[in-house]
Amino acid sequence: MAEPWRAIAERKRAERQSRIPKAWLIPSPPSGNGNLIGKHLDILSKPELHITQDFDATDLLSALTARKLTSEDVTTAFCKRAAIAQQLTNCLTEVLFDDAIARAKYLDAEFARTGKPVGPLHGLPISLKDTFKIKGHDASVGVAALCFKPAVTNSALVDLLLSLGAVLYCKTNIPQTMMALDSHNNVFGRVKNPANGALTAGGSSGGEGALVAMRGSILGVGTDVGGSIRIPALCNGLYGVKPSHGRTPYAGQEGGAPEGSSKVAIEATAGPIAHSMSDCEMFLRIVGDGKPWLFDPDCLAQSWEQQRSIASPLTSSGDKRKPVLRVGIVRTDGHVTPLPPVQRVIEDVASTLRSSSSTSATSIEVVDLDLSSLLSRCLKVSNGIFSIDGANTWFDLLESTSEPLSPWLQSRLRRRPAKSVDEVVKLQAQRIALQKEALQIWRPDANGNEIHVLVCPAAPHPVALVDRWNSVNYTSAFNLLDLPAGVLPVRTVTKEDVAVELKEGKALNGWDKTNQEMWGAKERKEYLGSTLSVQVVAPRLQERVLVEAMGVVDEVLKGIGKKAGSRL
Amino acid sequence: MAEPWRAIAERKRAERQSRIPKAWLIPSPPSGNGNLIGKHLDILSKPELHITQDFDATDLLSALTARKLTSEDVTTAFCKRAAIAQQLTNCLTEVLFDDAIARAKYLDAEFARTGKPVGPLHGLPISLKDTFKIKGHDASVGVAALCFKPAVTNSALVDLLLSLGAVLYCKTNIPQTMMALDSHNNVFGRVKNPANGALTAGGSSGGEGALVAMRGSILGVGTDVGGSIRIPALCNGLYGVKPSHGRTPYAGQEGGAPEGSSKVAIEATAGPIAHSMSDCEMFLRIVGDGKPWLFDPDCLAQSWEQQRSIASPLTSSGDKRKPVLRVGIVRTDGHVTPLPPVQRVIEDVASTLRSSSSTSATSIEVVDLDLSSLLSRCLKVSNGIFSIDGANTWFDLLESTSEPLSPWLQSRLRRRPAKSVDEVVKLQAQRIALQKEALQIWRPDANGNEIHVLVCPAAPHPVALVDRWNSVNYTSAFNLLDLPAGVLPVRTVTKEDVAVELKEGKALNGWDKTNQEMWGAKERKEYLGSTLSVQVVAPRLQERVLVEAMGVVDEVLKGIGKKAGSRL
Repeated sequence: MAEPWRAIAERKRAERQSRIPKAWLIPSPPSGNGNLIGKHLDILSKPELHITQDFDATDLLSALTARKLTSEDVTTAFCKRAAIAQQLTNCLTEVLFDDAIARAKYLDAEFARTGKPVGPLHGLPISLKDTFKIKGHDASVGVAALCFKPAVTNSALVDLLLSLGAVLYCKTNIPQTMMALDSHNNVFGRVKNPANGALTAGGSSGGEGALVAMRGSILGVGTDVGGSIRIPALCNGLYGVKPSHGRTPYAGQEGGAPEGSSKVAIEATAGPIAHSMSDCEMFLRIVGDGKPWLFDPDCLAQSWEQQRSIASPLTSSGDKRKPVLRVGIVRTDGHVTPLPPVQRVIEDVASTLRSSSSTSATSIEVVDLDLSSLLSRCLKVSNGIFSIDGANTWFDLLESTSEPLSPWLQSRLRRRPAKSVDEVVKLQAQRIALQKEALQIWRPDANGNEIHVLVCPAAPHPVALVDRWNSVNYTSAFNLLDLPAGVLPVRTVTKEDVAVELKEGKALNGWDKTNQEMWGAKERKEYLGSTLSVQVVAPRLQERVLVEAMGVVDEVLKGIGKKAGSRL
Repeated sequence: MAEPWRAIAERKRAERQSRIPKAWLIPSPPSGNGNLIGKHLDILSKPELHITQDFDATDLLSALTARKLTSEDVTTAFCKRAAIAQQLTNCLTEVLFDDAIARAKYLDAEFARTGKPVGPLHGLPISLKDTFKIKGHDASVGVAALCFKPAVTNSALVDLLLSLGAVLYCKTNIPQTMMALDSHNNVFGRVKNPANGALTAGGSSGGEGALVAMRGSILGVGTDVGGSIRIPALCNGLYGVKPSHGRTPYAGQEGGAPEGSSKVAIEATAGPIAHSMSDCEMFLRIVGDGKPWLFDPDCLAQSWEQQRSIASPLTSSGDKRKPVLRVGIVRTDGHVTPLPPVQRVIEDVASTLRSSSSTSATSIEVVDLDLSSLLSRCLKVSNGIFSIDGANTWFDLLESTSEPLSPWLQSRLRRRPAKSVDEVVKLQAQRIALQKEALQIWRPDANGNEIHVLVCPAAPHPVALVDRWNSVNYTSAFNLLDLPAGVLPVRTVTKEDVAVELKEGKALNGWDKTNQEMWGAKERKEYLGSTLSVQVVAPRLQERVLVEAMGVVDEVLKGIGKKAGSRL
């Protein structure tokens, strides 16, 4: 007879707790919803505070490869700060501190012995979403049936990161089934938003979002099949990039589905959650140049330099003028109208880009685009493909230990008959038709001008209250279309933002009505001070164009000074 | 009630015949199996003979873009020679001569008006397999139910080729269901091997192979999901390249399956059949640089120059020595042991490469590889995936006009229950496992040396007698693994080859036994003088490495003088 889920979950949580050194425990973690970022850091030494606070990942890597810092010191500092983040936000699943510090010492010794860093990520601690498999450790994804079943292989990206010299020191919390936007499961519990506990930390890479926001990680890796990198990045005021399928290794993940399932569905991808665009670019560049195609058969044989770039192929050859970036502004997905602050931040970004057209190192052109017909039609096809197996694999896993559904999922997920191949083929045909239609976005106009990226909302609302996320179509549409997409923080919600009333008018549909109901007095009070982000989207497999464009947009926004007052 | 298939087929053949100008008809086409190449060319003028005989596609394109030849003259010459090829080998399906000559005139006029070629393929006639859709013309694929249903859209590659300035003038014959290796169907009949009618012309791009061999086309485009470019190239002594999925546009083909089917199966790809490696490279380079990713959502944003190359990234940076090409020699797929001449030609190529290691412009290293375990396991998975829909779509189409199966298929194809999504997922998981295992081929060894390409047989026998092709695993394994692969002719079968007896020993299995039975006196007599080819295989999406390596191998083989006596 299967061990009941509750006992397994208790043992699993006890195991997690036991792997945090006693000296790193916070005697009485605070309750309440207050901002936790930068708090309760007493156990960190001054150098450890410096390491975890004053670098981004790119700078930290420079210091490591210049031997200004040792990997042991850097790893220990982030282990400590991750332990604090865990105690305050419940963001971790697997705690690998001992292994990580041992590896850091090994890397330091190798560097001393050979005089060379072990790889381009030498000694850098990187955190991973729980779905990644690391030999000898669980990838339980918060389901009792998968606990205490240590992985016997590494995920492809784990092998790649280790070959590049990285240190893996923890894995992070996720929602049950990964099909929720709040990261709650019965085994590990719920991830708390570090800046404001009344708001969601997002999901499904929610633990990653909280951990990075707490600076318990300088660089995290999430996965995204409908928004699971971008939503927690948004919820935590961070930068996050979802690549196209084939750019970064995804093979060998635990997704609660049989191997091979992704081939008939929408392929999830792995990407960074970080504190800056330069860190996202660093991660994608080093992974891209690390021959990912030798680790995952789906990865392309194309180095970072071999990708298209804003700097060169986007201008005519021989053209000496500065590079041109043409940005298409997309205001709505046609399915759920964004709430006022989301509309306002898009207008802010559009007007800032317009007014910066001649001040930036890149010439910026801004055009308005209406993609509401295309994007609104993505939703049904995405939902169809997401439900191919009728959630039967998840229900089988849960029932094997009598584990119940997470409360939020109880009204939203149930067993359904698995679809037939005919139905899957029809859905894939609809997907292909939408992808073909989307190619028109990128075709040069009569004057030879092409749009390089879109700027659009990543959600139709600000960071939602706990368990209130509404509609993922703003993110999932770009998984269906397989376009690389990232989010970047713009500014915080101001008093002016929350004073704006909804325009009178009938809701477009049930989702839109629910969205309007998220604009009550109680909600608006919580939104105040939370971060507003935008999404940037590039043509398929043009990750380099995406991060270059995100860098330009980010610089322009910083240039005019992001508004102060953020709690993040 | 549906029109019976026989009447439809008669009307369709009459339509085809009616589109060949009366003046181009051969009064009494010869019967028998004699070599037809270069025969019955009386209707061609001297300049037309020169155009169709003395150029390869690359040179012809140079002459066109230098305005030494007009597109009208070149197109007319190839229309005439294609008409002859059709009458002698039955290689065409759709005859588009009038449209093509009108387009050629337009392109000439544009060139005259603007002083510039319309595109990098300006004025070049290109032939296409019948599966490509050209607006206003059938893509019946030889099935009565699909006749007289002109396409309303162009295939993505058709749009791309037209945007590049090409002229499309005919489509070519295929086997019923594309699941046979001889190109026979009830509507158009059988394609005849131009060099020896007792041998097969191959399939499924068999009409393309015969047409190019007859020089009725200077450059043909086939498609390949299990060998359908490589097998007819081999059968006709030509060069053929099957790219990986995503390199060339395949979207919008007629494959007798519902749109979307390919997404759950093995994706077919489109590639060239030509007279030289330089023509294959020219096609892939120009298509690759023509932004195929704006025509087909599955195509990669990567120009030809952005691909890995033998010339640069294969050597260490800063290394001034000449580039190194490391070739792995693979002798058997472990499922069917190649007949003597196939074994001998592989040994010839291996020893020629070894002895040329210091004479070529590229340093060549040769290593022996045993992939029999990996390759033999590919067969079952390929067959599983090929039979996902249980041939139900084809049977529905055939039965709608009471059309029977082609004789060869009658004992080989029947309706089966369509597979479930679970079964498809299991097959895809097996495919992924094999693809992961295959990555080991390309990983650098302890000394940092990597294998760049494999050289192996493309079939376990020489060009087979009509309807006698045995086993496609030597080609289909590389579709399953999604590795780019091409064939190149090496030499003809000699008297010494056919004098070699089979080694004593039990057949490995039924397929191997059938293969041994292909080594009787009757068969060997026909093999004599036919072309022996080898297959070259590169890592996924490294088409540039593939064609560069094929070019090196081809040069080395030419350098030692391919043996004379070829009938091709």
